[in-house]
Amino acid sequence: MGEASKDAGLLAGVTIIDLSRVLAGPFCTMTLAHLGARVIKVEIPGTGDDSRAFGPFANGKSLYFSAINCSKESIALNLKSPDDRVIFEKLLEKADVLVENYRPGTMEKLGYGWDTLHQRYPHLIYGAASGFGDTGPISKRAAYDMVVQGMGGIMSMTGYPGQPPARVGISIGDITAGIYLSNGLCAALYKRAVSGVASKIDIAMLDCQVAILEDAVTAYDKTGEIPGPKGTRHPSIAPFQAFNAKDGMVIIAAGNDHLFSLMAGALKRPDLTTDPRFASNELRHENVDALQSELEKTLATGPVQTWLDALNAAGVPCAPINDVPHMMKEPQVAARNMIVSVNDPVAGPIKVAGNPIKVVGAAEPTTFSPPPELDADRAKILADFIGGGQ
Amino acid sequence: MGEASKDAGLLAGVTIIDLSRVLAGPFCTMTLAHLGARVIKVEIPGTGDDSRAFGPFANGKSLYFSAINCSKESIALNLKSPDDRVIFEKLLEKADVLVENYRPGTMEKLGYGWDTLHQRYPHLIYGAASGFGDTGPISKRAAYDMVVQGMGGIMSMTGYPGQPPARVGISIGDITAGIYLSNGLCAALYKRAVSGVASKIDIAMLDCQVAILEDAVTAYDKTGEIPGPKGTRHPSIAPFQAFNAKDGMVIIAAGNDHLFSLMAGALKRPDLTTDPRFASNELRHENVDALQSELEKTLATGPVQTWLDALNAAGVPCAPINDVPHMMKEPQVAARNMIVSVNDPVAGPIKVAGNPIKVVGAAEPTTFSPPPELDADRAKILADFIGGGQ
Repeated sequence: MGEASKDAGLLAGVTIIDLSRVLAGPFCTMTLAHLGARVIKVEIPGTGDDSRAFGPFANGKSLYFSAINCSKESIALNLKSPDDRVIFEKLLEKADVLVENYRPGTMEKLGYGWDTLHQRYPHLIYGAASGFGDTGPISKRAAYDMVVQGMGGIMSMTGYPGQPPARVGISIGDITAGIYLSNGLCAALYKRAVSGVASKIDIAMLDCQVAILEDAVTAYDKTGEIPGPKGTRHPSIAPFQAFNAKDGMVIIAAGNDHLFSLMAGALKRPDLTTDPRFASNELRHENVDALQSELEKTLATGPVQTWLDALNAAGVPCAPINDVPHMMKEPQVAARNMIVSVNDPVAGPIKVAGNPIKVVGAAEPTTFSPPPELDADRAKILADFIGGGQ
Repeated sequence: MGEASKDAGLLAGVTIIDLSRVLAGPFCTMTLAHLGARVIKVEIPGTGDDSRAFGPFANGKSLYFSAINCSKESIALNLKSPDDRVIFEKLLEKADVLVENYRPGTMEKLGYGWDTLHQRYPHLIYGAASGFGDTGPISKRAAYDMVVQGMGGIMSMTGYPGQPPARVGISIGDITAGIYLSNGLCAALYKRAVSGVASKIDIAMLDCQVAILEDAVTAYDKTGEIPGPKGTRHPSIAPFQAFNAKDGMVIIAAGNDHLFSLMAGALKRPDLTTDPRFASNELRHENVDALQSELEKTLATGPVQTWLDALNAAGVPCAPINDVPHMMKEPQVAARNMIVSVNDPVAGPIKVAGNPIKVVGAAEPTTFSPPPELDADRAKILADFIGGGQ
């Protein structure tokens, strides 16, 4: 397919003006770009998106920035300069969506608050991501990923019992906010298409952390049991965790009696199926320490791959704990086009994660346009939005 | 506002037929219900959604099921029974979206594969979530959250250096797939609104795990450095982690020289700002063990709340590591309506997480309709879709 054929995307024809920096906002607009929208980054002259300064670098280009900003265009504008404001307002006139992730109040100070924009550009949808959202007692406080991971509860449930809590190893606070904002903006585009009405979506990173806690709020509220960290174990199913093999760990998810019996067969441990301690999931969960010890007696005698082959042949859900290079070598990941090669004019050939929202029958681009240099698309953007160079 | 006034939702008027069970699919349709869609769960007669059997329970009602299935309706249909197939097809005739999370191939066996449905109901959008997606060498293999957390790389980056990897304490594999599916379906609704064309969205849990790895793919590919677990620390910023105080841990995210200086003032440790080991973020990152030790000398002398008060007063981003009950007591969480009380006729009053996609100016419902009993809405659904009882 070569480069993204945007005409095929679900959001073909949609234009996003993107004031956002670093992660939650740019992750949102990357998702929208993958869906076929035209995304124009409006960046601060001179420095641009703060993440352009985040290492590691390749030929001076930030790989962090590159990972999140493929398939976007860039123009540098100073929103405090009258001339640049004229250009920015021309962009807003023709755009469908404005995205920003400033602290609440910043856009109002620039004269671009929602009330003003909605009156002046009634077609314009507005998406904001912030630490705590537009409302509430600490709305205007700054937050970073670590802050909302800590406040939102997920860290208290991640790690090993009796040890300090662990941070989720990626910026899950920003990333879930970015996906929820993208989701809200797609719903707002639908609403505008059927009703003509444009909306502002207000996403708080902290809200998103609360939203993803599965059953924790409901279960704690009724039972009084505080969900804590469980290492790799599932709270109520056994075996459903990682076990030590000879050269690493193997995950076995044998969540019912049938799978448990298949597992025992695959591991040549038929005794496990007649062991009264393991006769039901309830008993296996109750005796999970003994179960782990029995399983590891066997698993420790062979390498991870041997056990995966045997378990997969028997139809038992299982997995290695892949590091990033091993994940990148999984044939399924390649077959799904989830590692995309991009030819960056500065950094050279780079790899980025692909688009997880697959549209059946639509051509998948095999590459993305490279992460833009600051202001790289100025001439084209001015021509498209103003009708001449400037 | 009382119960959800769905007319105000972005997806008002949209009807979803939901065959999905347990988590990824139901999490998707919960998100769509929050956005104002009418969601009709089509469940297996007798048992229904498997998660109805997942503990803990209140008066026999699953709290796990309840956490994910508010604001939905239920009808029990056996898709292998000719009579029930007639009803199901009547639902599809009037619905906008079908959601399922069977293993790829299951819907084809039922005679309801995408090609068949698209021809027969050309308006119908189709959303599928599975472990590995519709394509690729292991497409038809079963997966659970643990399997894709292990294969996708996130576990290899979560936990403490030198210790076994930790599972993210929630089912992040299912939940990200659910949000991405909801996002894809909203984009498909937009596309259908502007073009008349309906799409099938194919979401793989494993793809979604790859998509959320931030810069890990890009950085590893260029530098060869394998991202590993870092406890609570940030890979390149310091101080940006959790520290031990007298009665717990406090997160401090002082990512630049200005914030570092404000932090030193708030902790009454002006010496830190003149210590040559801590003169820049680069040096602080290099000397992060020494920095942690210096900070904990002070932090260990007082309780978490004292430090949070001092740091917040100085404008330094900081947080406690809340467990679920402490998160639920945060005034910001309450102000954002992120804990919603629901009056369930069986379980009694329950609490569930709120909707993180806020639409500015739209009334937020202060409660949701309760998680349905199996087949509870049969009469109304039949009346709406067939025009009479059956």
